Amino acid sequence: MKTEERSPILGKQSVMPAKPVYLTESASVVGKKEGEGPLGNLFDVVGEDDLFGCKSWEDAESCLQQEALSCALKKAEWKQEDVRFLFAGDLLGQEIASSFGMEVFHRPLFGLYGACSTCALSLTLASLIIAGGFAERAACVTSSHFASAEKEFRFPLGYGNQRPLSATWTVTGSGAFLLSSCENAGRHRARAAITGLTPGKIVDFGLKDSMNMGACMAPAAADTIRQHLKDFGRRPEDYDKIITGDLGSVGQTVLLDLLEREGIDISGNHMDCGIEIYDSREQDTHAGGSGCGCSAVVLSAYILKMLEEGVWKRVLFAPTGALLSRTSFNEGQAVPGISHCIVLESMRTPEEGK
Amino acid sequence: MKTEERSPILGKQSVMPAKPVYLTESASVVGKKEGEGPLGNLFDVVGEDDLFGCKSWEDAESCLQQEALSCALKKAEWKQEDVRFLFAGDLLGQEIASSFGMEVFHRPLFGLYGACSTCALSLTLASLIIAGGFAERAACVTSSHFASAEKEFRFPLGYGNQRPLSATWTVTGSGAFLLSSCENAGRHRARAAITGLTPGKIVDFGLKDSMNMGACMAPAAADTIRQHLKDFGRRPEDYDKIITGDLGSVGQTVLLDLLEREGIDISGNHMDCGIEIYDSREQDTHAGGSGCGCSAVVLSAYILKMLEEGVWKRVLFAPTGALLSRTSFNEGQAVPGISHCIVLESMRTPEEGK
Repeated sequence: MKTEERSPILGKQSVMPAKPVYLTESASVVGKKEGEGPLGNLFDVVGEDDLFGCKSWEDAESCLQQEALSCALKKAEWKQEDVRFLFAGDLLGQEIASSFGMEVFHRPLFGLYGACSTCALSLTLASLIIAGGFAERAACVTSSHFASAEKEFRFPLGYGNQRPLSATWTVTGSGAFLLSSCENAGRHRARAAITGLTPGKIVDFGLKDSMNMGACMAPAAADTIRQHLKDFGRRPEDYDKIITGDLGSVGQTVLLDLLEREGIDISGNHMDCGIEIYDSREQDTHAGGSGCGCSAVVLSAYILKMLEEGVWKRVLFAPTGALLSRTSFNEGQAVPGISHCIVLESMRTPEEGK
Repeated sequence: MKTEERSPILGKQSVMPAKPVYLTESASVVGKKEGEGPLGNLFDVVGEDDLFGCKSWEDAESCLQQEALSCALKKAEWKQEDVRFLFAGDLLGQEIASSFGMEVFHRPLFGLYGACSTCALSLTLASLIIAGGFAERAACVTSSHFASAEKEFRFPLGYGNQRPLSATWTVTGSGAFLLSSCENAGRHRARAAITGLTPGKIVDFGLKDSMNMGACMAPAAADTIRQHLKDFGRRPEDYDKIITGDLGSVGQTVLLDLLEREGIDISGNHMDCGIEIYDSREQDTHAGGSGCGCSAVVLSAYILKMLEEGVWKRVLFAPTGALLSRTSFNEGQAVPGISHCIVLESMRTPEEGK
């Protein structure tokens, strides 16, 4: 990774830090259903039931965040005071899962909202603040919870409403990530290096179907990925995987189509966390998983593992968010999307990779 | 402002950028009631009615944001493409005022949530990203709207519910700020310099009264101000004003008390934007104004004016946020607070000040 001489500002909307930021450690905590999915045995903690010993779904989501960050700190052998700044967000109104989840850590907190792109949003801002020399260590935490999200965006579970096949299933899970300016800030060498960032714009195609969020968000993913490749002067083949967060099977088709029209073919190396996390046929999750927790736990449990093992050398991580609320939906507004993307590289040298 | 040799990381939770970040230009757009208040003639735009030509309160709030940013860009003679990154947030669930307000600018967007501290949160992150060399120009926009906030947090206006005297009145307004690494990025010299930042932690005293948010947030303001003074090795007298966002008259008393117990007396130079914006007796606003829009429009219209004119040389701007939602309140949770603080300095040299 020769990056020393490069300018930090790159192209229209990207940044390549002069020195990589290291993803020291991470942890994933998920619910029962996620534990039963294809990636089930890779998560750090799988809950026995989705209340995690709490009295409300919202509390349970806060608990997920706490568990995830505590677990990551423990794995890295960091004390909570080692975290200079905390970046956190979730899907609930006024981000109560994060506020009540993070307050016990007593660290300066930057609250973020990027819907299901929040994991990338938090990693982007934390990376920039570390790369700028304003912190040596920071932590990012994001979460979602199936039951709190249904209540927040659609119907309380008790209603037993039906869901169309284009709908996704909000992942119950939280991912926590410890970032550092130093390659060896944790107990082991960092899990991966963050070497590039392309924050995204809101893209609004005027779609209004909150039961088909993959299609609503795909244009934003296409926009940020296209701009990223342009800013970095790269082709899709320069990445082992180009990974979206929760487009699901319907959104994936839209994304591949949109990019193909611009002469960009990512069909060979596209992966979507929402498609990976469930066996949609067996688990009845329709188009796939969604939520900030989806991309976060798949990043922690699966993507970083593949980078760590050197199976993948470089991936583009591009979660997408659907910027709707119950109110905007009920008032007939469209569902705009946003996607932030991050370049993650393996720490393995070619020799180690052999 | 001799800052060249200083380390960017300061004390437990502060940052002093090696070079100041400049607040190039700003704009404030407010509703009718704010226009009738004591600062009424200082705002850039005062709406004739609070719907601003829209069909819903949420749309009206998006419109406020659009107007504020457009006005700031126009005043500075910046094109929207000049803004490398946009930082925005509001109080509504899933921040729909910002998403629908900002999408027309087509700039990479960092969505933020810090309740009524969001103005400071946005300025903090934008300053750090500029100071780190990742952007030359950025913009921060925050808003609140009385009617959309009542609907989001308490009761729709049609209910005609009564409010206790400790309640505050959510400001209908939006403030937009253009930040730059360069002193002369706008049409005129920058309005002020940002020379220090102390991001805050969540502070939770277990108070549960959402009709007395000043008292809920005051402990967070006390915590961040105390830590700021310690990190910077300064005393309250080093600031012409120490300015909170929307503690109101009840919260102000709590803040002064809490700090006095620690031997810090800010009674001589404390100011609260929520107290300044309305004539609470004449305008029936009880404890004062509140909302992200409150500190934002007072900063733009009044605080920056005083710094520009050299009446104040250096102020500490410390808005506070109450991290509650309707759901957390209904589930019996406390109302934790957070406060981020920013040092703003006048651009006037001692000679010009005479």
